[in-house]
Amino acid sequence: MPVNLSAPDPASLLPVPGVELGVAAAGIKKPGRRDVLVITLPHDAEVVGVFTQNRFCAAPVTVCKEHLHSAAGIRALLVNTGNANAGTGEDGLRRARETCAAVAENLNLKPEQVLPFSTGVILEPLPHDKIIAALPAAFADLKPTNWAAAAEAIMTTDIVAKATSRRAALNGVDFTVTGIAKGSGMIHPNMATMLSFVATDAPVSCEALEAMLRHAVNKSFNCITVDGDTSTNDACILIATGANPAQPAAPVIMDAGDSRFDSLQSVITEVMIQLAQAIVRDGEGATKFMEVRVEGGKDEAECKQVAYAIARSPLVKTAFFASDPNLGRILAAIGYAGIADLDVERIRLWLGNVLVAENGGRAASYQEAEGARVMAAAEIAVRVDLARGNVVATVWTCDFSYDYVKINAEYRT
Amino acid sequence: MPVNLSAPDPASLLPVPGVELGVAAAGIKKPGRRDVLVITLPHDAEVVGVFTQNRFCAAPVTVCKEHLHSAAGIRALLVNTGNANAGTGEDGLRRARETCAAVAENLNLKPEQVLPFSTGVILEPLPHDKIIAALPAAFADLKPTNWAAAAEAIMTTDIVAKATSRRAALNGVDFTVTGIAKGSGMIHPNMATMLSFVATDAPVSCEALEAMLRHAVNKSFNCITVDGDTSTNDACILIATGANPAQPAAPVIMDAGDSRFDSLQSVITEVMIQLAQAIVRDGEGATKFMEVRVEGGKDEAECKQVAYAIARSPLVKTAFFASDPNLGRILAAIGYAGIADLDVERIRLWLGNVLVAENGGRAASYQEAEGARVMAAAEIAVRVDLARGNVVATVWTCDFSYDYVKINAEYRT
Repeated sequence: MPVNLSAPDPASLLPVPGVELGVAAAGIKKPGRRDVLVITLPHDAEVVGVFTQNRFCAAPVTVCKEHLHSAAGIRALLVNTGNANAGTGEDGLRRARETCAAVAENLNLKPEQVLPFSTGVILEPLPHDKIIAALPAAFADLKPTNWAAAAEAIMTTDIVAKATSRRAALNGVDFTVTGIAKGSGMIHPNMATMLSFVATDAPVSCEALEAMLRHAVNKSFNCITVDGDTSTNDACILIATGANPAQPAAPVIMDAGDSRFDSLQSVITEVMIQLAQAIVRDGEGATKFMEVRVEGGKDEAECKQVAYAIARSPLVKTAFFASDPNLGRILAAIGYAGIADLDVERIRLWLGNVLVAENGGRAASYQEAEGARVMAAAEIAVRVDLARGNVVATVWTCDFSYDYVKINAEYRT
Repeated sequence: MPVNLSAPDPASLLPVPGVELGVAAAGIKKPGRRDVLVITLPHDAEVVGVFTQNRFCAAPVTVCKEHLHSAAGIRALLVNTGNANAGTGEDGLRRARETCAAVAENLNLKPEQVLPFSTGVILEPLPHDKIIAALPAAFADLKPTNWAAAAEAIMTTDIVAKATSRRAALNGVDFTVTGIAKGSGMIHPNMATMLSFVATDAPVSCEALEAMLRHAVNKSFNCITVDGDTSTNDACILIATGANPAQPAAPVIMDAGDSRFDSLQSVITEVMIQLAQAIVRDGEGATKFMEVRVEGGKDEAECKQVAYAIARSPLVKTAFFASDPNLGRILAAIGYAGIADLDVERIRLWLGNVLVAENGGRAASYQEAEGARVMAAAEIAVRVDLARGNVVATVWTCDFSYDYVKINAEYRT
């Protein structure tokens, strides 16, 4: 069961002027399941993206990168679930391109103005004919209020749809940021099997939007892990339509020198953090949500290295599943994180607000009953002080349960 | 259930002249359980070891390293299970030293002639008084034929005791190599929660023995993973007594220039590979044994990097548990292994002898029924050709089952 996560109220998801969404059932994996999503954008929307760093990146990722580099502006996104079109070679690229061409033909665009996304089983041929056959139904469904249906359409092993909205007041004008995401397994930083689409009606230049995306992803999707696996298909797309009807001629935010830059960036970051945490809360088999905060590091890299060593450890994750304050496993993970000159005598470790370890061993004040009290909660904070610098990094993860094994052992059956 | 692994027949374990072993029940964790092992060595035995690289190394590891560096020859080893004496700070060091002093006093040695080893729960004070109280019983039990009892005494979550013997014919004289090991969880290269003690009656210099140990460990214990966690306590000790009664004055093997060096090293390596594989076969919750062979690499490091990416992936391991030929997960793991210039189009992947992927996608000849046939077996070979060099590396691992979660969620209860 997802940890403190429920599906968003559709009424809470604010339309982003200029963005329309339509869903349809293509029968890719399950008959009747709405498994195809089309998003259309206005003429001068800016679109930027970050993608998986897996060398076996999927065909749609390759095509997305090509199309984003082309001069033609992106006007439509096509997403399917049920099949990842990954590990499919030249044939997979051809099929991905054919779906883009079909969208383009229907909307009177060039194929390179369409971005394709796929998520689902790897190494199976994409049933592109089914997707193309479902396009007319998706186009007929296009409307600005379809964010909740879109969030549902992109789910795979997700239990709960993930979407959120925020208002950003920029120089007295209210703009909107709305985003959706999917992801539950094969989740690790630098993009996992996760897709996220976030849009704002603020006017932002491509360069400024790119900067905001990198900042926000670094503080959100690159701070989560479910199982340490990095997927072939991850993508996070940020869209700025500049189509706010209250200020249709608002000057474009060109760079960080614009006073609106920081405000918008922080709202986008908030949206992405909420979506990233939702992915962890809905992590496969999750029963606990853990925040691992590492402070006192020399740089962000070593803080994240230690945080991920803890957050990835199957032994730590099974102990959290059991609500067992087996803190030795956390110390062991810190020890093997790979920081060669780490002085373990100086490290302090807290579970919630309980100091559990210092001076290379268990804290004298620590009572196991206090640790057990913290572990009993559904949300658990682990804090480590490396005592060698001033940098802090935070990572979110979930526990490792019977259901994780069950979900992944039975995924294709 | 361990995969194709049963306890060794005690009669098959050959005594190593000069080595005596005694076990006793100290009541560290379970009353009546034989949880203390003493090994005694003759006057001029050579002893070398490799230890965990975890920065939070346990107190006994620190003491072992000190004692191995002292000029006094090692004459006794003391092992306890049930408590790792790790994350225990200065107090843990003091307790480890007290157990060495007690052994030394009984055997008329200096404390630095004794090596201490502990395995079990981390972050709990070592009940050193109980261990010291059990020493007389362990000394009374000392005999050369106690290898099977010793293998049992060092088990923690192990289901099956691990021990093996080989004969090494060196210049026409039969020497013996006998070893034991324990380990089942928190298993990852560069030493995991594993202890192994291997002894031979061949005469070997300290330097030559060190070289043999490094070679053998690199081909055995540094090629296995169960859960990717590296323990605080790992140790692998290699002993040469030079006490073969058939050739009491055999010249000492000083270096690789001695024609006996390679023969002995390869027998020691065989013993360690068998013990390392036994640890994986008895991996926590294991139902399958997997060999991951990566060939065509530029160097051993990148071959192992790819092999471990596959062998560590929870998604791969759960698919193997389910006997599901979800080969896309293997391709994904190869892709995120971290080789930046990997050309995925050139990679070939086999499951058993079935070619499943080439040219960036599924092999045209692949039939899922053939993959399913390979996956149904208890032992599965995965082979990857990176097609960029001539180096090969092999790693062994097990699958990831419900029982892994169960064992680790309930370990302390």
